[in-house]
This record gives sequence, structure tokens and C-alpha cells, in this order.
Amino acid sequence: MERIATGIPGLDEMLHGGYLPQTANLVEGAPGTGKTTLGMQFIHHGIVVCGEPGLILTFEEFPQQYYESAASFGWDFRQMERNGKLRIVMTSPEVSKADLEQVGGRIEGLVQEIGAKRILVDSLSHFERLSESPSDLRSIVYGFINSLKREGLTAVLTRESMALLGESEGADDALAFLVDSYTLLRYVEIESAVRKALLVLKMRGSDHDKGIRQFEITSRGVEVSATFEGREGIMSGSPRRMMDSFVQAFVRH
Amino acid sequence: MERIATGIPGLDEMLHGGYLPQTANLVEGAPGTGKTTLGMQFIHHGIVVCGEPGLILTFEEFPQQYYESAASFGWDFRQMERNGKLRIVMTSPEVSKADLEQVGGRIEGLVQEIGAKRILVDSLSHFERLSESPSDLRSIVYGFINSLKREGLTAVLTRESMALLGESEGADDALAFLVDSYTLLRYVEIESAVRKALLVLKMRGSDHDKGIRQFEITSRGVEVSATFEGREGIMSGSPRRMMDSFVQAFVRH
Amino acid sequence: MERIATGIPGLDEMLHGGYLPQTANLVEGAPGTGKTTLGMQFIHHGIVVCGEPGLILTFEEFPQQYYESAASFGWDFRQMERNGKLRIVMTSPEVSKADLEQVGGRIEGLVQEIGAKRILVDSLSHFERLSESPSDLRSIVYGFINSLKREGLTAVLTRESMALLGESEGADDALAFLVDSYTLLRYVEIESAVRKALLVLKMRGSDHDKGIRQFEITSRGVEVSATFEGREGIMSGSPRRMMDSFVQAFVRH
Amino acid sequence: MERIATGIPGLDEMLHGGYLPQTANLVEGAPGTGKTTLGMQFIHHGIVVCGEPGLILTFEEFPQQYYESAASFGWDFRQMERNGKLRIVMTSPEVSKADLEQVGGRIEGLVQEIGAKRILVDSLSHFERLSESPSDLRSIVYGFINSLKREGLTAVLTRESMALLGESEGADDALAFLVDSYTLLRYVEIESAVRKALLVLKMRGSDHDKGIRQFEITSRGVEVSATFEGREGIMSGSPRRMMDSFVQAFVRH
Amino acid sequence: MERIATGIPGLDEMLHGGYLPQTANLVEGAPGTGKTTLGMQFIHHGIVVCGEPGLILTFEEFPQQYYESAASFGWDFRQMERNGKLRIVMTSPEVSKADLEQVGGRIEGLVQEIGAKRILVDSLSHFERLSESPSDLRSIVYGFINSLKREGLTAVLTRESMALLGESEGADDALAFLVDSYTLLRYVEIESAVRKALLVLKMRGSDHDKGIRQFEITSRGVEVSATFEGREGIMSGSPRRMMDSFVQAFVRH
Amino acid sequence: MERIATGIPGLDEMLHGGYLPQTANLVEGAPGTGKTTLGMQFIHHGIVVCGEPGLILTFEEFPQQYYESAASFGWDFRQMERNGKLRIVMTSPEVSKADLEQVGGRIEGLVQEIGAKRILVDSLSHFERLSESPSDLRSIVYGFINSLKREGLTAVLTRESMALLGESEGADDALAFLVDSYTLLRYVEIESAVRKALLVLKMRGSDHDKGIRQFEITSRGVEVSATFEGREGIMSGSPRRMMDSFVQAFVRH
Repeated sequence: MERIATGIPGLDEMLHGGYLPQTANLVEGAPGTGKTTLGMQFIHHGIVVCGEPGLILTFEEFPQQYYESAASFGWDFRQMERNGKLRIVMTSPEVSKADLEQVGGRIEGLVQEIGAKRILVDSLSHFERLSESPSDLRSIVYGFINSLKREGLTAVLTRESMALLGESEGADDALAFLVDSYTLLRYVEIESAVRKALLVLKMRGSDHDKGIRQFEITSRGVEVSATFEGREGIMSGSPRRMMDSFVQAFVRH
Repeated sequence: MERIATGIPGLDEMLHGGYLPQTANLVEGAPGTGKTTLGMQFIHHGIVVCGEPGLILTFEEFPQQYYESAASFGWDFRQMERNGKLRIVMTSPEVSKADLEQVGGRIEGLVQEIGAKRILVDSLSHFERLSESPSDLRSIVYGFINSLKREGLTAVLTRESMALLGESEGADDALAFLVDSYTLLRYVEIESAVRKALLVLKMRGSDHDKGIRQFEITSRGVEVSATFEGREGIMSGSPRRMMDSFVQAFVRH
Repeated sequence: MERIATGIPGLDEMLHGGYLPQTANLVEGAPGTGKTTLGMQFIHHGIVVCGEPGLILTFEEFPQQYYESAASFGWDFRQMERNGKLRIVMTSPEVSKADLEQVGGRIEGLVQEIGAKRILVDSLSHFERLSESPSDLRSIVYGFINSLKREGLTAVLTRESMALLGESEGADDALAFLVDSYTLLRYVEIESAVRKALLVLKMRGSDHDKGIRQFEITSRGVEVSATFEGREGIMSGSPRRMMDSFVQAFVRH
Repeated sequence: MERIATGIPGLDEMLHGGYLPQTANLVEGAPGTGKTTLGMQFIHHGIVVCGEPGLILTFEEFPQQYYESAASFGWDFRQMERNGKLRIVMTSPEVSKADLEQVGGRIEGLVQEIGAKRILVDSLSHFERLSESPSDLRSIVYGFINSLKREGLTAVLTRESMALLGESEGADDALAFLVDSYTLLRYVEIESAVRKALLVLKMRGSDHDKGIRQFEITSRGVEVSATFEGREGIMSGSPRRMMDSFVQAFVRH
Repeated sequence: MERIATGIPGLDEMLHGGYLPQTANLVEGAPGTGKTTLGMQFIHHGIVVCGEPGLILTFEEFPQQYYESAASFGWDFRQMERNGKLRIVMTSPEVSKADLEQVGGRIEGLVQEIGAKRILVDSLSHFERLSESPSDLRSIVYGFINSLKREGLTAVLTRESMALLGESEGADDALAFLVDSYTLLRYVEIESAVRKALLVLKMRGSDHDKGIRQFEITSRGVEVSATFEGREGIMSGSPRRMMDSFVQAFVRH
Repeated sequence: MERIATGIPGLDEMLHGGYLPQTANLVEGAPGTGKTTLGMQFIHHGIVVCGEPGLILTFEEFPQQYYESAASFGWDFRQMERNGKLRIVMTSPEVSKADLEQVGGRIEGLVQEIGAKRILVDSLSHFERLSESPSDLRSIVYGFINSLKREGLTAVLTRESMALLGESEGADDALAFLVDSYTLLRYVEIESAVRKALLVLKMRGSDHDKGIRQFEITSRGVEVSATFEGREGIMSGSPRRMMDSFVQAFVRH
């Protein structure tokens, strides 16, 4: 089956090669977990390795912020834009939505202009201001996601998680039902330090790795490594050492 | 007693053969747990094995999505529709409700046209927009469920659970009192990975297995396996290893 | 002291023989715990064993549902109705309330017609739609309960609990102050399965067993058995094994 | 210092002899914990042992209910009323409040008529309907309490606690700042049974026992016994066995 | 550095001698923890030992209540008032606020009349009724606190905590940012009894003891003693015995 | 890479030299944790060691409060202001916002007048009163932050955390997505005392130390020391001793 690789070795392995084509892929995390980095890496990999031009839709940060962030990983987004492989568009959820609803809108134009195959929407959380009704919001986001698919795009959609550690209790997770895959980035406290965990909770139409993996943001971008051994309750953000570890430590002596 | 098998071996065993005829069966889970897959398998099994045509009522996804999802399990829903054994109807809760309330409505017509015996309603959560009053909503859903039964249908009704891990605290579970059976699909974190658990909490008019079973979505659909051994607090989503495991490990050394 | 036996051996023993005459007895549980079965058994036992005719007041389910449920336990409610020992009345909280407030209303008429001594009100939760003011609702329910007592009835009133496992935090428990006894039916997770627990929390005017007992719904109805040994936190729905169990297991080896 | 004994041996000991004269004493508990029994015992002891006539103010239950409840403990409240030692007044918070605010009102009249020294107000929770503003409610209750003191009365005021086990989180405890003593009655789950715990949290102007004591309602009324040994977290309603118990059990073998 | 001693030996030691001059010092606790006693002791010590006259501002209790409470500790507040060393003023937050805002108001007058150096404001919680807007309330309290400082006063401000055990979750703690020091009084359950804990969380412009200390209200007032040894989670109100205690007990045998 | 040192040795080490130039750096903590001290130290270090003049924007406290606080650490802010190296401006969020939006506003003037390179905004929490709409507030704060960057300033923005111990559950953390770095100051209960923990959760464009470090406010300002060894759940505010500690203690004997 064709796969749209993210370019993040550990993550592509978890996804059994990458995302499925023309799917909407939600990546959710607390501040600083690296949602945008993951999304930029997906776009960068598409352009540089797969020959798939990409779009970045931003609702808050200026393109300048993306140029700089990308540069810190050695990715020259400015050059890619000049080469017609990338477009970073600062817009609003209102405009994006209207845009995709009409034939020949701006986004459609950009897709055709550069032959875009990938898109990063950063972040879906800004759509929340479009309606106070959860069912209206759901319907708007569903329409937006389908528009992206109709354009032939494979999308990474970031979402902000309000809980610093563990899951936020009051969270309305309805949007997670609309997407094709759902990846969680979480902070985890271990041995008086805060590490990062990545989990692919859901992936439609494909099997995937269910492990909770450690990851870091390094000078090369997102780097996914092994699972957390000997701990219970990782997704709570504050895991416990397991009895086994205790027993092993005990009998060693 | 006559049983309506779901075609999922482990689940049918838990249900002592399957659902009872003309019952409403709620299947609830978080995003990606496999509610819709379970429902499609129930429909597929009815058509292919039991000679019972089926309906799928969808309030959000297009029929195309079901064709594709089914195909990934080797189920040819398109062919079944062509053979007059299946109808996938994209509609709205408003229309469905009105439809079933009048004699000779569209759903009644489809039931008669293909001789449907089973229905998948995907998902009941969309009914929530019909009323803000819990008691009105309850009364609407109760009426809808009874209409399905009057048509001679055995129904799987999916419902979305907002809690990723464990139970959501503020959840209003009134609808669970209206249905004949209630199955929960949950994520459970074990050894740095997320597994899936299935539990039949309630089944009217029949005994059933009360175990909390592991399950997976494989290329053959839902596959239910054994219970979770040596863990406490599974339904919290973050189980603890039990003392027994500790003791056993201890004395082994 | 005269007792109104429920016909459930373990429960009657916990109640020191049964309910006191002309009392209101609240039975609360999550979906599928068996509230209605307990109530039907109380009615059935009254008619068949004690020669006490009974009424069933239902606010949602049709009488047909009770005939069928009862039949699955071998209780022929249809025949009992024909013999003038039982009346199943589908009504609304509004009508029931008005009915009991006026002299010679329908319920009073039925009580006199069959000489009813017992009543099952299924469920008290439907009264919640009568008023949004907790103090008005309390006053309405108090009036309703007193009307039942004035008719000489001993009542089982079911109530729906929204929490699947453990206690629901936001629950308004004011109605529990109005009744003469209060029995809780709860799900409890033990060894990767969900069992049922029964607890008589309150009983006015009589001593009673304070144990948390296991029970099951079998082909004979509710069957109450022993307490839960070696567990702490049972009412949380997710009990812990106690240290003692650990110690005993340890020293055995 | 003069003390107003409650007649409950264990409790009087905890209170170093009883309540202080002309104080307001709050007794709070969940349904069935025995608040009203404690209050009736306080009234009964005053009349029979101390020669102090008493009033019972009730906002919901009829006097008949008190006669019957008292009789189950062998207290003849009807006879005491006939002897002019007791008055049970069914009224409303609105009337009581107005009554005490004016000179020569009904309550003042009753106090003078029988020379009342004690009062049971059952329950303070009904005052909550007098105002939705917490600060108004506080001011109303403060005024009511002071009126009782001005009449020379020592009061037991019951209050309903909504949490079945443990403390209710959202509880507004402002009224506890207004009273002279504050006693909590709580359910505690221990060894698969529900026991009752009593704690005097606050007592103005006197030292008191800070222990969390077990108690029961027997045929003689409230009986307070020892503290809970070897348990942590009793006030949570679901205590844990302490390590010490484990160690002791361990080394015994 | 000059210090304003509270007269409570353990507390003054924790404060490295006492409060700093012309500061606002918040003392917060649940009902019965001894906030007012601590404040009265601060006033009493000022008058009797330091020659610093004091004011008590009360928004609910009558001066009589303070005379009586003080007397139970052997402090003759009535005599001090007669000697012009103390003024107990029952007022309202509205009046106090207006008073301090104008030149030559009543409070300023009293300060000058008796040369007051200390003030007890009992309690700050009553200010909450002045505004429903948190930011307005904050601004009002900030203004009030600054007025007290401008008068040259060192203030103890009591505040009511709604949580009986542990911290209340929904608490708005904005006022704690306005004050110069912040002391918490809490109930702690240990060995089936409720003890009291005192913690100085914050002290501007000075180092202080960070220990969580036990304290009692005795006939001499507040008496602060040692920290809680061998327990974790004290501020939760329901501490756990620590492993160390377990190990020590274990190896002793 | 150029770094803007804070002058706090342990913190600069965690930040790999200091903040990045022209970034917005959020420092959040409960009352008394030392947010303002950290910010003043950042300003002081800039002026005295790096030759970088600084601004302090305050929305509540008077400049006098900063002079005094600084003096207690031996920092002569008054002299620095006289030397034209520092400006402390008491203003309101409304004015600051308007100010920065217009060309040549007051803040821009001050920046140019003293050649400011650093700014302390104390605190960002006061912006919350500018709008009740979270998305408007976000947009306002984002604009404000960008204005500061355009002026060439490196900013420390303090924010108040309402939770005394651990994380507050209902907290809206949207602002943390806008800033370049995010540092948390928290209280942690250990061995019957309250210590302080510092964690740099997020730092854009640079690697950083992820440890949870202890720190104290001493006469020299903020002093960051080692991590917390042998504890789990530090960020909960109430850590547990880890099994390892237990095992080590065990085998030592």
C-alpha cells in the first residue's frame, strides 16, 4: 500500500511506513512538545526526499517564525518557497474554510500552482472560535478535512492540548472521531526530569505500533526511540515504577 | 433461544451466541477503538453467513468511507449493495427520526425492499444535537429505538466516548438505560503500550460473560481474546500490577 | 415486627426479614445492575408467596417489556394481571403525582380494585423532569412517597445511577434523605471481570446487615451471596487487594 | 464549666462533658448516618435526665415520624409532649426565621410555655432554599442561630451531606464557620462492609477529643466506640490498611 | 531587622522573629483550625508585651464573642479596651473600604486615638461579596491592604478555607499574591485522629522556616510544635506512612 | 549563538547559556515561589553585568515595592533608575497594549531613551481582564509579545498559578503556546516541609535541560540546585518515595 512517509524514522516505523494517502492526521500535544516541528518535518521530507511539494497553513504565527524554526533544523524553507515547492500561508480559519468551499479558491490555486501533495494545518485549535456549538464545529471541521482530501492532500493537523501532564479531564475529544489517525505527544515525569512520549492511538485502514515511545527534539528534528520500560501509568504523566523493577532490584542484591 | 450472531467469535461467545432478536445494542468507545468496525462486521456477517440483509445509517461519513473501510477487511459492501443485500444511507438524526415516525417512510421502505433484519446506526452521538434537554433526548432516542424494533430489526448503535483512557466523569449515561445490551470498548495502558479492552456490561434477558477481554482490529476485523491477568483497575485505563504477580515473581527467585 | 419479604433470600436476611410495612425503599444502580429485576421479584414474591397483590408504575417501558422480562425468570405476569393480582400501569410522573393528590384517583382505584399491598415505581429518576429546582423536586417526591404510604403500600422505588464504576461525584443525593431504606447496586471490577455488589446503606427503624455483598442475576432472579474478601475500596468500583492477602500468599511459600 | 450533656456516653466524653450552654452545634452526615437520632437523643436526655424541656423544629417530616422513630429507641415523645416537656413543631425555614425575628413569636412562645432549654433543628439544609446568594444565606443562618441563643437554647442543627463516602468536593462549607461545634458523621468502608465514623472537628471555647471514632445506631440510640486502628485515610471513606499492620502480620509468621 | 512578634513561640521562630513591620499577613484555614485565635494572640501580645495597641475589625461576630473567646485564654480584652489599648469594631467590608479611602475616616480616627500598631481583620472572606469580578475584588482588597499599611499597621488577615481536608480544587487564590506573608492552617488525619498543621508558604523580604508543623489550640492559645515525621502528602490532609518507616519497623524485628 | 543570561547560575546552565535574544519567556508560579525575584534578577544582571538597560512593567505593585524587594537582595534599583539604566513603569494592561500599538508610544520612548534590551512584565495574568473571550485574549497577548520583540527586547513575563501544590486542573494554558520558553515554579512537599521546584518545560530554537530542579530564594536571589532524587510525581506537588529508595534502605541493613 502506498505510504506518505513523515521522514521521522521511528514514527514511520510505528505507522508501518507512513500515513495513508489523502488522509487527515491529527497530532496533539501540550506547549513545547513539538507538534509544529513534527509537521514541518513532514513537509520538509515530502519536498526534499519524496518530491512532494507542500503547503503550510498558519493561523497565528508569521511565515518568518517557520523560516527560523526550520532553519534551526537545517531546513531552508525560504529557498523551497523560492523554488516553488512550498507555500506558507498565514490566514484565518474563517478564510480557509470559505476558501475551500468555493471552486478555484486561493488554497486550491496554491495546490495547483506548486502541485502540493502535503499540507500542515497549524493549528486546528484555532477553528474553535468559529462556533460555540460543538456539533456545528464538528461539522465545519469535517467539511474542512474533506476539502483537503478532495484536493488530493495528505494533511497533518496539529491540536493544542491544555493539560501539561496527563490528560485533561474536561477535554472535548469529538474532533478525534473525524480524523484518520491520531497521535498524542505528552510530557512524562521520570526521575526528576520531564521526558516526551509519543503514542499513535488510532490509524484507520492500517495496523500500527501501539507502543508509548520516548522522543526528543534534536538538531535533526523529532527523534523517536524506545518505549518506557518498567513503568505503569505513563499516559497519566506521572508514572509509577512497576513491582517487577522492585523485584529485580531486590533479588540482584 | 434464537440468537443474532455478530460473527466475532470471542464476542458471540461472551454474548452466549449473539444478540437477542429485535434488540438495541449499544457499543461505545473512544476514537479508534473500533466501534464502526464491530458494527460493519455485524452487518457483513448477517448478509454473508446468516442470509440477513442489513442497513447502515450514517450521520456524518459518506457511504464511500464505509466501502473503503469494509474493503480493508475484505468485505465487498459495494457488491452487496448491488445484490440488494445492503443499503448504506447517509442521513441526519432529524430525518431518521421523522422517517420512522411516519408510516411508509424511507427507512421502512428500505427495510421492506431488501428484507433487512439488521441495522447499524453510526453513531447515536449525533442525536445529541436534537435536544438540549436530557429528558427530551431520552424520549427521542427511546422512540427511535422502538421504531427499529417494530421494523423487526436487530440494531447495533455506536456511541462516542470522550474519555481517551478510563471513564469520563461528567458523562451522562442515561441512554444506556434504554438499550438491551451495552458493550464498552476502552483503551488500556499496559507495559508502555496501549491495548484495547471489551466489556459487555449489560444484556437484558440473557446471561453473558462478565470478563474484561482484550481485543484487536486485525485484517479480519475485531478479534476478541483473553482477559487481562494480574492487573487491577483495568477500566480506569491505567491498571496496576497486582500483588499476586509480585509475590509470584518474588518466590520464583 | 411485621416484615415485607422481597423473596430474595440473601437480601431478606440483610434486611432482617424484609422491608418494614408502608415504607419507601430506594434501590439505585447503573444500567444493567438489576434494579428492575429486584423490583419485579419483590412484586412477584408478594403475589405468589405472601398473597399481596402488587402494582407496577412505569414511566418509560411498555407493559410488554415487563411481561417478557418476568417471563425470562419464569414469572407469568400476564396471568397474574388476568387473575386480578397485578396491574402494570404505564403513565407519567405528572399524571401519577396528580393522581395521588386527588381523592379517588386512578392509582387509588387500582389499589382498591386488586387490594394492592406492594408497588414498584420504575423509576424515580423520571421525576427529575418535573422541576429544575432541587427543593421543589424534593417536595414533590416527598409528597408522592407519602401518598403511597397513605394507600397502605410498601414501595420499591428504582433510581438510575449515572456512574458506571464507583460513585458519581456531582450526584445530588437529596432524595436518599426522604426514603426509609436505601440500597445501592454497583459494578465492581475484580480479576479482569465486572461483578455486582449490593449494599443496604440505610434502613429506618430497624437494624440491618452492613456488608457489601456480591450478587448475580440468574434464571431465578437476584441472588445475593457473600461479601468481598481481601479487598479494599470496593465502593470505588476498582478495589485493591489488601495487604493481608499479600502476606498470606507470601508466607505460604 | 457547665456542660449540656447529649446523653451519648462516648460523645459526651469526646466533648469533655457535653456541649457548652447556649451554643449552636452542627451535626452533619449522609443519608442514614443517624443525624436525627443523635438530635433526638440530645432532646430526650435533656428532658428525662437533666430536667431540661426541649423543642424539635422540623421542616419536612411530620411529628408522627419523630414519635415513631423515638419509640423504636424506647423514648415516649408523645407522652413528653403531653407532659409539657417537649414540642415538635413542623414549620418552614421562612416561618421560623420570621418567627424568631419578632418579639413574642411562636417559637419564643413555646420556649416560654415549656421552659425549653434545648432545641433540635432538623435540618439546616432546608434553609438553603431561602436564598441563592451564599452571603445572604450565611447572614440568614447567622441571624437564626443568634436568635436561638438569645432564647437561652442549646441547639443541635443537623445538616445533610451529599457525599455517600468521603467528602464532597464542591461542598460550600461556609455555615461551619458560624457554629460553635461541628460534628461529622461519615460512612467508612472496611473489610467489605460499611461502618460509621464520628468526628468532632471543631469546638469553640473548650478542648475536645480529636479522634475519629466508630459508632452504631442500636436499640439504645447512638453508641460511640473506639477509633479505627491501623487504617489511613478514614475520612476519604475508603481507608487503606497501614504498613504497620502489614509488618506486624509479617513478623508474626 | 525590626520584627513584629506574634507571641506564638513556634510561629515566631518560623518567621525568624515575627512579621515584618507594616505588612499584610494572610492566615487561612478551615472551620475550627484557629485562625481567629492566632489573630487575637497577635493582638494580645502586641498590647501586653510590646506596648503596641491594636484594632480588631470584625464583619460578622459581635465584640462580645471576642471578649468571651479571649477570656477562655485568660486575655482580658474588655479591660484592654477600657485602657485604650484595644478597639473591637464590628463593621462591614463596604464601610471599612470607604472608611480607609477617605481622609480622617473612622478607622484612621481609631488608629490615632489609641496609637494602634496592629490590626486583625476577621475575615477577608467577607470582602468577596463586594464584587463578583475577580479582578475588581483583587483591586479592592489591594487598595484596602495598602490603606492599612499607610496607617502604619501590621495586619493579620484571616481567610476561610472551604476544604475540610486537603486543598480545595476550585479555589481562587488570587488574593495570596497581594499579601506579604501567607500561612496555611490545615487539618491532617493521622492514626484515626485529626491533627492540625501550620505552614508558612510565603514571606516577602525575609527567609522563613518551610516546615509543615503540628500545632494545637490549648488554654494558652496557639502552640506550634514539631514537623510530621515519616509521612508523605501531609498537605493532602490524608498523609501516607513513608516507606522508611516501614523499613525501619521491618529491620527492627 | 548569542544568549541573554539571566544571571542565575543554575538556570543559565539549564538554558544552555540563557534566553535567546528577542524572545518572550514565561515564568509561572504560585504565590511566594519567586517569579518576580527571578524577573528582577534578570533585569539586574542585564544592567550590572551585561550593560543592557532594562524596563519593568508593573500592573499592580508600586515602583516602591520593587525598590524595596530589590534592596533586600542588595540591588540598588533606585540608583540604576537615576543612572538611566532602568525604568519601572506602573501602568495597566490597557495602556501598555495601546502604547505598543502606536508608533512612538510611551514604552517605545522609554526603550529608546535608555536603550533598553530587557523587560520584565509583572504579571501577564493582569491581561486576563482585557477580554472574556479566550481567543481574543490570546490574540491580544500575541500582539503584545510581538510588539516587545519588535522593540528588540528580550522579555520575562510572569504568570500567576492558582494551584498551591501540583497543577490546577481547570487551567487554560493557551498562552503557553505563544511564548518562546516556559518555566514553571512549583511547591513540592517533601519530608514535612515545602520546597521549591523549577522546570523549563519548553524552549524554542534551542536544546535545554529537562530536569526538575530544586531552588531557593536566598539573600543573593534565586539559587537553583540539584534535581530531586528518589521521588516520583514531583510535579503533583506531593511526590512519593520511589521503590529504589526502599530497596536500597532495605539491603543496607
